[in-house]
Amino acid sequence: MSVTNLFDPSGIAVVGASDTPGKIGYEAMRNAIEFDGPVYPVNPSASGTVFGREFVPSVTEIDGDVDLALICVPAQVVPDVVAECSEADIGAAIIFAGGFSEAGPEGQELQDRLVAAAEEGGVSLLGPNTSGFLEPSRDLYATFASDIEGIPAGNLAIIAQSGGLAYAVAFQAENAGVGISAMVGLGNRATVGFREAIDYFDGDERTDAILLHVEGTDRGRELLEACRESETPVVAYNVGEQDVGDFAESHTGALTGEHELYEAGFAQYGVPTVRSSPELLDAGKALADCPEPDGPNVGIVTAQAGPGIAITDRLKAAGATLPSLTEETQAVVEEILPGITFSANPVDTGRPMPEFGEVVAAVARDDNVDIVLVYELYEGSVGYPTDVLEGVVDEVDKPIVFASGGPEAILDEELAELEELRIPTYRAPERAADAVGALVRYAKRNRNPDAVAAEEVNADD
Amino acid sequence: MSVTNLFDPSGIAVVGASDTPGKIGYEAMRNAIEFDGPVYPVNPSASGTVFGREFVPSVTEIDGDVDLALICVPAQVVPDVVAECSEADIGAAIIFAGGFSEAGPEGQELQDRLVAAAEEGGVSLLGPNTSGFLEPSRDLYATFASDIEGIPAGNLAIIAQSGGLAYAVAFQAENAGVGISAMVGLGNRATVGFREAIDYFDGDERTDAILLHVEGTDRGRELLEACRESETPVVAYNVGEQDVGDFAESHTGALTGEHELYEAGFAQYGVPTVRSSPELLDAGKALADCPEPDGPNVGIVTAQAGPGIAITDRLKAAGATLPSLTEETQAVVEEILPGITFSANPVDTGRPMPEFGEVVAAVARDDNVDIVLVYELYEGSVGYPTDVLEGVVDEVDKPIVFASGGPEAILDEELAELEELRIPTYRAPERAADAVGALVRYAKRNRNPDAVAAEEVNADD
Repeated sequence: MSVTNLFDPSGIAVVGASDTPGKIGYEAMRNAIEFDGPVYPVNPSASGTVFGREFVPSVTEIDGDVDLALICVPAQVVPDVVAECSEADIGAAIIFAGGFSEAGPEGQELQDRLVAAAEEGGVSLLGPNTSGFLEPSRDLYATFASDIEGIPAGNLAIIAQSGGLAYAVAFQAENAGVGISAMVGLGNRATVGFREAIDYFDGDERTDAILLHVEGTDRGRELLEACRESETPVVAYNVGEQDVGDFAESHTGALTGEHELYEAGFAQYGVPTVRSSPELLDAGKALADCPEPDGPNVGIVTAQAGPGIAITDRLKAAGATLPSLTEETQAVVEEILPGITFSANPVDTGRPMPEFGEVVAAVARDDNVDIVLVYELYEGSVGYPTDVLEGVVDEVDKPIVFASGGPEAILDEELAELEELRIPTYRAPERAADAVGALVRYAKRNRNPDAVAAEEVNADD
Repeated sequence: MSVTNLFDPSGIAVVGASDTPGKIGYEAMRNAIEFDGPVYPVNPSASGTVFGREFVPSVTEIDGDVDLALICVPAQVVPDVVAECSEADIGAAIIFAGGFSEAGPEGQELQDRLVAAAEEGGVSLLGPNTSGFLEPSRDLYATFASDIEGIPAGNLAIIAQSGGLAYAVAFQAENAGVGISAMVGLGNRATVGFREAIDYFDGDERTDAILLHVEGTDRGRELLEACRESETPVVAYNVGEQDVGDFAESHTGALTGEHELYEAGFAQYGVPTVRSSPELLDAGKALADCPEPDGPNVGIVTAQAGPGIAITDRLKAAGATLPSLTEETQAVVEEILPGITFSANPVDTGRPMPEFGEVVAAVARDDNVDIVLVYELYEGSVGYPTDVLEGVVDEVDKPIVFASGGPEAILDEELAELEELRIPTYRAPERAADAVGALVRYAKRNRNPDAVAAEEVNADD
């Protein structure tokens, strides 16, 4: 079963569409009509129109091109609706309802019936127990959530086991001015799981990094293999370090508790893991926007020692190496700033100054350095080194990551200019350090001979 | 030596004041004149006026009430200037210059001379090697930093070893709409250290929580005792888990590397510690705004399972207890929401709904619960339970902490209403969990008999 019908539909049916605000069938319809393609409300007991579209009594009676159904009906009816979708040649369906495998033996039985209907009918299922997905660049909002139209289009694909968590990340992205290519809540993963979603968005030209949220899955091996095979960088937020057993099980019917196993697997395959939703977004942004780092050697330039020390502390904990700068670089730095506070690595300039950008560029050009991390408190009389850094990322083909503090209005304007130079920016020193930590772990993926060996071992079992 | 002259001056002298923008003596002057008291520019080689104030050749020639000098002159001259301050009966001085104990043996010698002059003359010193302090509610900006006038007045005192880190936190506060009572960069702590600053702001009626940033100090015992004795809650960001030796030493002349010792000390005295500047702010806000928690028992209410699981995971790691709800509470919840997704603790309502606030209130009233943590993705058709929660915090006298996701414009408006109910709000599930983690650790302070025993042990050594 292809997931192209799901994530790249030509037309959409909303089954259980309603004209009553607040109902899922209404909210899903309201979102769906933003799509630039035909959208049909389906409801046997409704007549007239909703959002200007005429109700159709059944998916089999749609006169038009539809390959995705948003199923807004109660759980018990869903297997039959999916069978009808198959009849109507609709290749994909999203099941919003809960009450399936997450809801005990009866729910499991219902989900088994659902999967049987889907497999027999060749219908790819997202869910059940999901809030759906969205792709802002195509105005494709296959979800019942509200206030989502402001989530900007961009290059991050969020693939989350939990739709609620997916939205938490997506709104954080919106509020940070970061765009997404897609946001997917997998829910119970009846047929479409991590493997299928990762494969699809790895092949999606709009996507430059894949952000995973994992609570535990019984298809863990597939998940890890999909991550390894993805040419698009993947970063994973693997929840469940502590025992949250019952609650998690009641959620998506999956057991957490194999947290360490996953952490080890991700590490083995060079997939950086993070510990919170803000960190997932921060790491994804760096992975998506920066050139691929060649190694874990970080050159730090800071205009304030305290944040520089916090950054250094955190980077070392993340496994980064802080190499000595070459004599050439040290000579350049000392010529630019004689008597500089600390001209090894980190380079501490003491305060921002007009030459700050030249120091950053010198460190970026250092052969010992794979990744550059800069911290500078905003000072109005100096500003940011946007002019000096123009073209430097492409020239050195290395990640340059920039963190700063200052009033929001200034940062919004001035950091946006740095972002245009492919320099991701952050507003707390530790958040930038964590993002660079993910780059460091990603860089190690390509250098780790053990990973290759482990691959071979796994291939035998 | 009293620090009242420092933090509560009647008048200010800016020594080394300048009319050249960009110079520290200009920037400090520009900030100082915001103060509602006399401000005198002092410079023997300048004449005329700056910012409308006439230059005075020496502090000894000021005709007026001054008890704080902002010293903007090079390091070598500073000891003499401090001696002059003493002559002029100025009881406190801020030394911005670096080049003292952080700069090798010569610098140490200079600092020794400085301390001798200060102690002989009865002058309290903030710094050297500091960016100073500010108190927004009094328009008191004793610093050379720029763009600081937007930092709002509030109830958090930031006391940081590093001025740069202090500003990182203060601007994060501004951008999150959180106000501060003071922001202090201690720098080299020649005479005013953690002890003096904590004592002062513990007694400051504007301050409801003290946020510490510690890189390492040779007066660690004093620091810990000041924390223990503070009636105002203290939370500490203790940097230096990894070896950042040389760099840190070059900063404030203090060795990190005793990180574990401090962590143990803070834990023993019930001072929550955090691992980043955003977390410091988040925890401080909860400690300042909430009633003091009676214990570590957290009741969680969530409208989305995924974020609820992430919260639960993180809270357990922080040492929180998730008690069973009383049968009464369970009955109330089940009556409000029959067939609710998960009605133990966490309570998962599945989606936001009009009754969501009643569920939160029921959990808050549960005798087994000391702290309530709520997560709810914003849904326009439901909104936040502001009406229902009005008065509940005062009624139950427990912390209620609220996290949500949604578009910034909506959150800015609607979460502000919750904040007015003494419910601190956060925009990522994990950030709220970390803040509650700090409340949990603070609550344990009052319940830990070991802490009392340890106190006695320490009193003997």
